[in-house]
Amino acid sequence: MARVSQEHLDARRRQILDGAAICFARNGFHATSMQDVLKEVDLSAGAVYRYFSGKEALIAAIVEEVLGLVREGFEEAALADPPPPPDLLVATVLGRILATMEFLTVDGRPAFPRLVVQVWAETLRNEELAAVLRDGYGAVQTSWGRIVQAYQDTGMMRPDVAPDHVARTMMAAAMGFLAQQALFEPMPSEILQDGLRALSSVRDLPDGDRGDTSDGSQLG
Amino acid sequence: MARVSQEHLDARRRQILDGAAICFARNGFHATSMQDVLKEVDLSAGAVYRYFSGKEALIAAIVEEVLGLVREGFEEAALADPPPPPDLLVATVLGRILATMEFLTVDGRPAFPRLVVQVWAETLRNEELAAVLRDGYGAVQTSWGRIVQAYQDTGMMRPDVAPDHVARTMMAAAMGFLAQQALFEPMPSEILQDGLRALSSVRDLPDGDRGDTSDGSQLG
Repeated sequence: MARVSQEHLDARRRQILDGAAICFARNGFHATSMQDVLKEVDLSAGAVYRYFSGKEALIAAIVEEVLGLVREGFEEAALADPPPPPDLLVATVLGRILATMEFLTVDGRPAFPRLVVQVWAETLRNEELAAVLRDGYGAVQTSWGRIVQAYQDTGMMRPDVAPDHVARTMMAAAMGFLAQQALFEPMPSEILQDGLRALSSVRDLPDGDRGDTSDGSQLG
Repeated sequence: MARVSQEHLDARRRQILDGAAICFARNGFHATSMQDVLKEVDLSAGAVYRYFSGKEALIAAIVEEVLGLVREGFEEAALADPPPPPDLLVATVLGRILATMEFLTVDGRPAFPRLVVQVWAETLRNEELAAVLRDGYGAVQTSWGRIVQAYQDTGMMRPDVAPDHVARTMMAAAMGFLAQQALFEPMPSEILQDGLRALSSVRDLPDGDRGDTSDGSQLG
């Protein structure tokens, strides 16, 4: 049997994963067959099964890769010292993740946001993958919670809100924006940065009626 | 043939839709069979096919119902005069949608957020349903854009950001929070309201280095 270099093996594995990612982003995990993947990567069944035992193994590899990439993006952005303000932090994460994956396209549009939505749906019915997602989310929640604490310690943000609630909200904005990219059209992450910056300028009007029982107190 | 009242027909249709929604929320659209639905609603195939010609018809009915409910929730919240501030607006929408659907559960947890994620995934591969989603999103974008304009006109929010960017950001926060409910554990919408309120208190520090080219100007 001919000897092949590790480099070749890695490149082949990468080729299969990228082709499968495009299929899954286009059509979801369940409506995609191994035949679809073979056709997309233009390899024989034998060549593909050498790397992945079947569709479930491919799904697991893709889901873990997608979640790892998202988690890395979120965590790296949190390492800057001093931490960037919330609008910039959230936009940086999204910009970085989308840039890393922009080479993967479906019908001329970025495949990655679609893949993320498919991954979310898949974790709902697969406890093993759900655990990977929960792990990553928990880690980001912790590191972003620390950043919020720093915002509060330095007087940049009102201190009377649980850091965890703010971290979840920032993550929600990023997740929702990613979903919008999948469901509608590609948008630069500056739109989200703009929006968060505008939201940080909100003031209660002197005679404002909030319609709830908030004390309406604000910093600054 | 026995005559049955319209009321009875409606109730039976409702029963089928609710059972199917539970199946779809639990396992996704593609991994759910009509057999699963029949078992869940405890009806014969004949009884179910009288209302829906097959799984595709059931999926279409559920997707349109879910998207209609979300759209209605978003639009209704925008009708209040004066419009509530962003944190309250977003939390009200979510609270209302989740309360309307809390009777539907899967494994003792709310089914609706899971169903929303499944619906998103399904629209990625079904152009007809994607059009329904785009319509609803566009309508909410317009009505929330008008609210943002009102925030800006009354001096409640800095006026130098495109209202559409802010509307998209608020919708992203709501969508992402809904996704978190599906993927992790149920959370009261007050968490998101807290987070948005804290984000609206963010101030650049006098010697802050934003790390970007923002002028850092703020209202207030």
